[in-house]
Amino acid sequence: MGAGEIFVWEMLGTAVLILLGNGVVANTVLRDTLGSGTGFLFVNIGWAFAVFTGASIAAPSGAHLNPAVTLGLAITDKVSWADVPIYVLAQMVGAIIGAALCWATYKLQFDSHPEPENTRGIFCTAPTVRNPLWNTITEVIGTFVLVGWILLSPAIKVGADGVPQFGNSALGYAGVAFVVLVIGTSLGGPTGYAINPARDLGPRIAYALLPIRGKASADWGYSWVPVVGPLIGALLAGLLYLVLPV
Amino acid sequence: MGAGEIFVWEMLGTAVLILLGNGVVANTVLRDTLGSGTGFLFVNIGWAFAVFTGASIAAPSGAHLNPAVTLGLAITDKVSWADVPIYVLAQMVGAIIGAALCWATYKLQFDSHPEPENTRGIFCTAPTVRNPLWNTITEVIGTFVLVGWILLSPAIKVGADGVPQFGNSALGYAGVAFVVLVIGTSLGGPTGYAINPARDLGPRIAYALLPIRGKASADWGYSWVPVVGPLIGALLAGLLYLVLPV
Amino acid sequence: MGAGEIFVWEMLGTAVLILLGNGVVANTVLRDTLGSGTGFLFVNIGWAFAVFTGASIAAPSGAHLNPAVTLGLAITDKVSWADVPIYVLAQMVGAIIGAALCWATYKLQFDSHPEPENTRGIFCTAPTVRNPLWNTITEVIGTFVLVGWILLSPAIKVGADGVPQFGNSALGYAGVAFVVLVIGTSLGGPTGYAINPARDLGPRIAYALLPIRGKASADWGYSWVPVVGPLIGALLAGLLYLVLPV
Amino acid sequence: MGAGEIFVWEMLGTAVLILLGNGVVANTVLRDTLGSGTGFLFVNIGWAFAVFTGASIAAPSGAHLNPAVTLGLAITDKVSWADVPIYVLAQMVGAIIGAALCWATYKLQFDSHPEPENTRGIFCTAPTVRNPLWNTITEVIGTFVLVGWILLSPAIKVGADGVPQFGNSALGYAGVAFVVLVIGTSLGGPTGYAINPARDLGPRIAYALLPIRGKASADWGYSWVPVVGPLIGALLAGLLYLVLPV
Repeated sequence: MGAGEIFVWEMLGTAVLILLGNGVVANTVLRDTLGSGTGFLFVNIGWAFAVFTGASIAAPSGAHLNPAVTLGLAITDKVSWADVPIYVLAQMVGAIIGAALCWATYKLQFDSHPEPENTRGIFCTAPTVRNPLWNTITEVIGTFVLVGWILLSPAIKVGADGVPQFGNSALGYAGVAFVVLVIGTSLGGPTGYAINPARDLGPRIAYALLPIRGKASADWGYSWVPVVGPLIGALLAGLLYLVLPV
Repeated sequence: MGAGEIFVWEMLGTAVLILLGNGVVANTVLRDTLGSGTGFLFVNIGWAFAVFTGASIAAPSGAHLNPAVTLGLAITDKVSWADVPIYVLAQMVGAIIGAALCWATYKLQFDSHPEPENTRGIFCTAPTVRNPLWNTITEVIGTFVLVGWILLSPAIKVGADGVPQFGNSALGYAGVAFVVLVIGTSLGGPTGYAINPARDLGPRIAYALLPIRGKASADWGYSWVPVVGPLIGALLAGLLYLVLPV
Repeated sequence: MGAGEIFVWEMLGTAVLILLGNGVVANTVLRDTLGSGTGFLFVNIGWAFAVFTGASIAAPSGAHLNPAVTLGLAITDKVSWADVPIYVLAQMVGAIIGAALCWATYKLQFDSHPEPENTRGIFCTAPTVRNPLWNTITEVIGTFVLVGWILLSPAIKVGADGVPQFGNSALGYAGVAFVVLVIGTSLGGPTGYAINPARDLGPRIAYALLPIRGKASADWGYSWVPVVGPLIGALLAGLLYLVLPV
Repeated sequence: MGAGEIFVWEMLGTAVLILLGNGVVANTVLRDTLGSGTGFLFVNIGWAFAVFTGASIAAPSGAHLNPAVTLGLAITDKVSWADVPIYVLAQMVGAIIGAALCWATYKLQFDSHPEPENTRGIFCTAPTVRNPLWNTITEVIGTFVLVGWILLSPAIKVGADGVPQFGNSALGYAGVAFVVLVIGTSLGGPTGYAINPARDLGPRIAYALLPIRGKASADWGYSWVPVVGPLIGALLAGLLYLVLPV
């Protein structure tokens, strides 16, 4: 698959992922919405099927939507290292676009929100208890489960074009959605389960750039944790895969 | 497929969609029900599987159930323009029938509801913050995701009769249900995600016609937004599809 | 398929259906449980996957688990009228056994419940507003959707033994579960969606027979509604099927 | 399949199962988490998709993840009795590792929890009303449904290597997840649905060994119930299977 095609599908899929993922948090966090205050299960379900929707769209490029997934597939020789920068760039661009579209969707609600300094959590993650080491460990474990599952799933197949995919059925990507759902419910409590550097850094950049009423800082001091943690988790999952009798 | 068959399947599928979709809102809004006050996740789940149920039934005609979907499929040459009026008419008739059946299901609860002037929201959508431009943008974005996903899904297949379908498996239409679920949780906060002109206008007409106790106006002033927004979203999704390397 | 086999599979599947369906209501209604007060969405999810579980088990006999489904299949010549009494008898026996197993599962919680006169709702349905005509109409509409979906689903296949089934895949019966989920969320508000004579009458008989501490009457005055309504709904769905261009 | 491979897959799959299953309880029980106080449906959903995730990973060894499942498959000659000790040992080791990883994920939240003596419930089950006989009966019934469904599911196939599996599709193990979901909602109210000796005893041992701040006793007095109950349930399901006309 050509670099241009990889770029288009990963950008489009990641934009939809982040539009829907940021959107479910906006719906529960902002005041003047129909889903205001709905809670964490609501957020988990929204992110899970955001993955399903974005991944189905990005099926032609393998639907990574996540630099950690791209890393895990590259370590295990399922994706060419030469394509890695294209995947990651597309994911970052898509994530910023998706975050901007989320803001447009909820423009009126951002404008009327009574605590505008608290809307950063709609875009990027933050820990409930701040501690760089343990926050990183939480992100490592969550991403290890995600990338490990993708590598070991009996459903993943390498297509004729060398792109590993979850089939062309209507529900091929529902499995990944179910895994993201449970990572959210089960491992998302301490840090909000970034488990994806583009999912966190892209919307954080968008938050810094967009003219959001009354916004606070982008919390750059924490921003490396949801990048480094997921990459370590993907690395460990890839190494495990290489030693397993697959 | 003949016009008569298209009409029957689209009407029947849309009637079931609206019966179940309006029904879940009735269950949470009305006072004397077992689901009273259950909330927005409940509504999202109800609408999602209303789509699954109605779409499975309307599989022979391609299960559009939505003029915006019909428009997106016509723009991309997956449905003949000559059939578009039949699809849309059937969807509108089905939507009105479905809304009337919902009212019959909850007749006793409509009669005993203590705030009968607030039951319009069971039938049709309304924004939490009223602003024609931004409300329309929200509906454009939501419908863009829906129609874009349908066009790009790896699961859609064009059958021997020229009707694009999601296969004949028990769960072929679960994918669409998952997408509608997440559009609801994630993009439904500001306007209640009509994302379907027939879903909003049909029940609005039914609300105006049915002898509902203590009903208010049908809010015709807002009624064009959930028609125009979805059609623009479908148009944009169709145009995107035409330029993508599909 | 022989009468003995039909009896065994339908009895077993219906027993599991009612054990799990009555169980989820017990969990939310009774006081000393981990799910006490969880609410209607919880009940809808429990009943939906109770159907999935029981129906998968009863796949060899076609997994009716419901006299209304048997009636709908008989009217449309998908099941022999001679087998109908065996199906219905097995469903009734299974329902009574399932209700008794539910009581055994929650024995300690029944004994400690502070309002023992209010436990009938664990076993059988009751309307929120009592009115024989409209309660029946609600049950007719709910069952019409269930049986209509089963008859029209693109997934149903008639096997070599003449038994219509939803395939032998792991998830063949998830479609029926999704339909029961949305009938619950959307049409279950007024009467608790019996939509199955055996599901209501069997546990009602069990409630009358079991030595439940402090129990009230079995409310026989209402007991015909969740029998007659579902049978009328199945009849209408079967007749519709016969006139449709299937 | 060799003993080493069985050990690796069962250990890995069970570790993921318990990490995610204990994790969802930690998320709702602990104070400083994003899911604090979310409730029982949240826990049921987390455990269900914990099963999906762990089972997909352990597909090569048949994904038992549970000594009761191994027992049910051995009784019915679907697994060699000689392999049973390897399965069970791997499940116990995996369960302890998974519980330790859950503790690492929530380390900061365990340290800040205001009632540290109440965190045992994150690891292992306890009854709401303590009574050895009836608690055991509840666990027998829940496990009977789980193992009975697995044995009777139309989806289970015995592969060329003699390992019974739920296919190699992306969603083959979603069926088991749905069954565990409904066992949780419907039969989990009295005892917290261990339905798996390794799921309960492994984390209980981990709780006793880990340096958890302010921890209480491991409640060894109850620990035999979630071992004996599930084994009896599996035995009964296996015996039923042997007499059924399968």
